[in-house]
Amino acid sequence: MHDLETTLALLANTPAALNALLRDLPDAWTRVNEGEKTWSAFDVVGHLIHCEHDDWMPRVRVILEHGNAVPFPPFDRFGHVKAVEGKSMPELLDELIQLRAENLAELRGLRLTEAVLARRGQHPALGVVTLSELLATWAAHDLNHIHQLSRVMAHQYREAVGPFRQYLGVMRCDAHGA
Amino acid sequence: MHDLETTLALLANTPAALNALLRDLPDAWTRVNEGEKTWSAFDVVGHLIHCEHDDWMPRVRVILEHGNAVPFPPFDRFGHVKAVEGKSMPELLDELIQLRAENLAELRGLRLTEAVLARRGQHPALGVVTLSELLATWAAHDLNHIHQLSRVMAHQYREAVGPFRQYLGVMRCDAHGA
Repeated sequence: MHDLETTLALLANTPAALNALLRDLPDAWTRVNEGEKTWSAFDVVGHLIHCEHDDWMPRVRVILEHGNAVPFPPFDRFGHVKAVEGKSMPELLDELIQLRAENLAELRGLRLTEAVLARRGQHPALGVVTLSELLATWAAHDLNHIHQLSRVMAHQYREAVGPFRQYLGVMRCDAHGA
Repeated sequence: MHDLETTLALLANTPAALNALLRDLPDAWTRVNEGEKTWSAFDVVGHLIHCEHDDWMPRVRVILEHGNAVPFPPFDRFGHVKAVEGKSMPELLDELIQLRAENLAELRGLRLTEAVLARRGQHPALGVVTLSELLATWAAHDLNHIHQLSRVMAHQYREAVGPFRQYLGVMRCDAHGA
């Protein structure tokens, strides 16, 4: 059973956690990726911002207004590329902190009941999903990207750690197709 | 080439990042694991504390005093179990923040040069490792455990996310033997 307060607690913490981890780190940690067409920690934060704008709350609103009669608006997985251009990591983090706070305030204001959480929406690829599943995924998606950026950052040290590499599971993570 | 300042920047940030992520989260996120003999986020923080005591700086000191003439003291991977008993997450986080700050102050005080970073130590299982590799591993080990705890936490939502599960790579992570 999905508990909304548990989800909200994590969603409230993620921006501050990323801020504490990333704000003042050298680019050697945050602006490097795992190779062509992969994401850096900087890109990940940009993607999270883009999702605050275009993914989670717009989908919540579609479910509340139309149920599954109207599919979710399309989401561009590379929509962050333009949005982060020319920005610094501190600017992105400030933006994420602000957008998330606004979205959670809106979400709390909806006072969602169990009955409303069971409402269905239409995902363009996955088919029917519930509002509860959408909100649980918002939190799991934060964790998915913390998982990703810790891997991308660790990758930068794959040579520096020498023989210790074999003890570091993160160095063997193949990204699971994500 | 391993840059010590880059390593120190990450080591300085990890405790605050974990604090922001975990301090006030419900136990449903932090005290649950992936099954028998696996670790919760709480256990991971306990392990990081144990490493601050028994792993990194003791090994640094052995290298500086004895080079690879004396092997590193043994490290108990389950040594945290007793250390966390009866403690709360906020207590563990306070402890980690304090120990890490003390250890980094000691490390900075050593004013390690490139020549000293090249010194060798004797790992009981891995054989010869350099001081540079040991310190790079300290940082990568933080990332390894952020990777782990994001996976363990996401695992708790494997049912709640419904069909979205297939988009969440973290749900397919098998821990890479770690």
